[in-house]
Amino acid sequence: MNNSFLDACWGKPVERTPVWLMRQAGRYLPQYMAIRSKCTFLELCKSPDLAAEVTIQPVDILGVDAAILFSDILTPVEPMGLKLDFNPGPVFENPVRTMADVEKLRIPDPDADVPYVMETIRILRRELANKVPLIGFGGAPFTLACYMVEGKGSKDWSNIKRMMYSAPDVFNALMEKITMMDMEYLNAQIRAGAQAIQIFDTWGGILAPHDYERYVLPYTTKLINGLNRQNIPIIHFVKGAGNMLPIVQKAGSDVMGLDWQTNLGTARDLLGDKMAVQGNLDPTVLYSSNEYIEKEVKRILDENNNRPGHIFNLGHGILPTIPPENAIHMVECVHRLSQR
Amino acid sequence: MNNSFLDACWGKPVERTPVWLMRQAGRYLPQYMAIRSKCTFLELCKSPDLAAEVTIQPVDILGVDAAILFSDILTPVEPMGLKLDFNPGPVFENPVRTMADVEKLRIPDPDADVPYVMETIRILRRELANKVPLIGFGGAPFTLACYMVEGKGSKDWSNIKRMMYSAPDVFNALMEKITMMDMEYLNAQIRAGAQAIQIFDTWGGILAPHDYERYVLPYTTKLINGLNRQNIPIIHFVKGAGNMLPIVQKAGSDVMGLDWQTNLGTARDLLGDKMAVQGNLDPTVLYSSNEYIEKEVKRILDENNNRPGHIFNLGHGILPTIPPENAIHMVECVHRLSQR
Repeated sequence: MNNSFLDACWGKPVERTPVWLMRQAGRYLPQYMAIRSKCTFLELCKSPDLAAEVTIQPVDILGVDAAILFSDILTPVEPMGLKLDFNPGPVFENPVRTMADVEKLRIPDPDADVPYVMETIRILRRELANKVPLIGFGGAPFTLACYMVEGKGSKDWSNIKRMMYSAPDVFNALMEKITMMDMEYLNAQIRAGAQAIQIFDTWGGILAPHDYERYVLPYTTKLINGLNRQNIPIIHFVKGAGNMLPIVQKAGSDVMGLDWQTNLGTARDLLGDKMAVQGNLDPTVLYSSNEYIEKEVKRILDENNNRPGHIFNLGHGILPTIPPENAIHMVECVHRLSQR
Repeated sequence: MNNSFLDACWGKPVERTPVWLMRQAGRYLPQYMAIRSKCTFLELCKSPDLAAEVTIQPVDILGVDAAILFSDILTPVEPMGLKLDFNPGPVFENPVRTMADVEKLRIPDPDADVPYVMETIRILRRELANKVPLIGFGGAPFTLACYMVEGKGSKDWSNIKRMMYSAPDVFNALMEKITMMDMEYLNAQIRAGAQAIQIFDTWGGILAPHDYERYVLPYTTKLINGLNRQNIPIIHFVKGAGNMLPIVQKAGSDVMGLDWQTNLGTARDLLGDKMAVQGNLDPTVLYSSNEYIEKEVKRILDENNNRPGHIFNLGHGILPTIPPENAIHMVECVHRLSQR
């Protein structure tokens, strides 16, 4: 039984630094592509046996210290009443723009509406048999709202910002509803067996710090406070938030995810000894030589300077064209160089 | 003669805070669209009379305190030997990937190879007749390298980072050549009459701080040191650099451009009294009501707290769908609320 990931989340000392990779189950692995070639991405998310299989692949192939549920942050948004498609990025046919649109959204019952997610978690807990812990996850309310309002990815996210600035009642009603959905969804994941929860706020960093604090922080805080957290560490990753970590910290998670633009040592000084951190290698470093990867792993471990409460990870998801052997090498370097 | 922009660049007291907008000559103005409808974007850049006309438009329409040359950061890259097209973003048919590609690049003679840029500047100095100062500009070496290596915009910029990490000799040779080109180009703009220079590093923030310091800072520093700066303030804008302002400051510019994710007050504390700053309203705020715009202008002026050396601007370029009357209102608010 490898508990190093959970121990590090709680700031306990570990024999060697635990490591996993965001998007570790994914297109860079030929074993994933073999399964993915037979179905669409959404079909894969909705097939518990296959989703469990691709979740376990990187545990065996890379030797990481945690598994993360294979799914998509938008999975629970579909039963709110928005038809989801991938082309290749996520697309909602009918984006949310008005109060009437918000009022039409329903709050799903996760066990009835996304049963495949809970079933995947139950299969995984059996099959992993405590070999490594299982992380569940969800999108932060703001990032989900970004996709729901824009209808797809955006360069400047002007529709959601326009709503935020000019129709705060609509924005707040939407954020409130998403927060309730998220709370039900993540608590259902915990009930099904998730042993940690990561909240992804991919787009939180598009906001000025005072806007993040005013428009986003209250909802993420409410979400985190509403989770049944006993023994379940919460990891909060806001991409592009290096500038405003003390504000993000107020949301109350146990672990702060760091992107690669943030210096890990400086972040730890800012956040204090009681908060664990996760990160933060630039994913593109995995395109480089073994020597370069090792040097960069060592740099990050040095920045952490033996403080307990560090989970090694990338600063964002692994990229589809990265050679798997380089990811394996990275994991090996983290374990070898951090051995106490 | 309105010198408030230049005075603020040098940290001198001004009667009211000067203001201009990145991309102030552009698609949100119907007067610009009227001209642009008759030619392509590149044809407009290469027609001195038309380029001068669209440069002056926002000075008259918005009442801003500086004009900025209408051109594109990639204009001087074309005569290096890369065929440039817009579709709608910039596209180079033959991206730079190998040392042989770098060796083929030539360093243009700006007066011979981009004569239309220098001619536009000369026309503008005559027509502006010192009503407001004229800003010249160029891309920072790293941002130009990003486009030259990727061949177009990118989500993860993996080709340039791969080159940086795995073929540093090719990367350094390319950066060296771009730096020489940039130096000739910006000095030619100064000779032609540009009264300030802004260096745009749109993509500097995709790098971890230590990577920026190692791979980018030496070249931007060399560029700035190589400019004939007597009486010509240099503005350095690195988007996404809020995390690493003290590193960016080492490049030696007179003014630091700030994006909207950076708190202006905190940035001024970090950068010290001797460095002026420019920024930093989120462009999407210009979609909101007059009252909201006024409140946000006031917030930024309050963050500056009457320190000399502040040029008001957006935190990035104005967006094509913003109502011009909102930009006019923003300029009016800056002038009214900052009146000493």
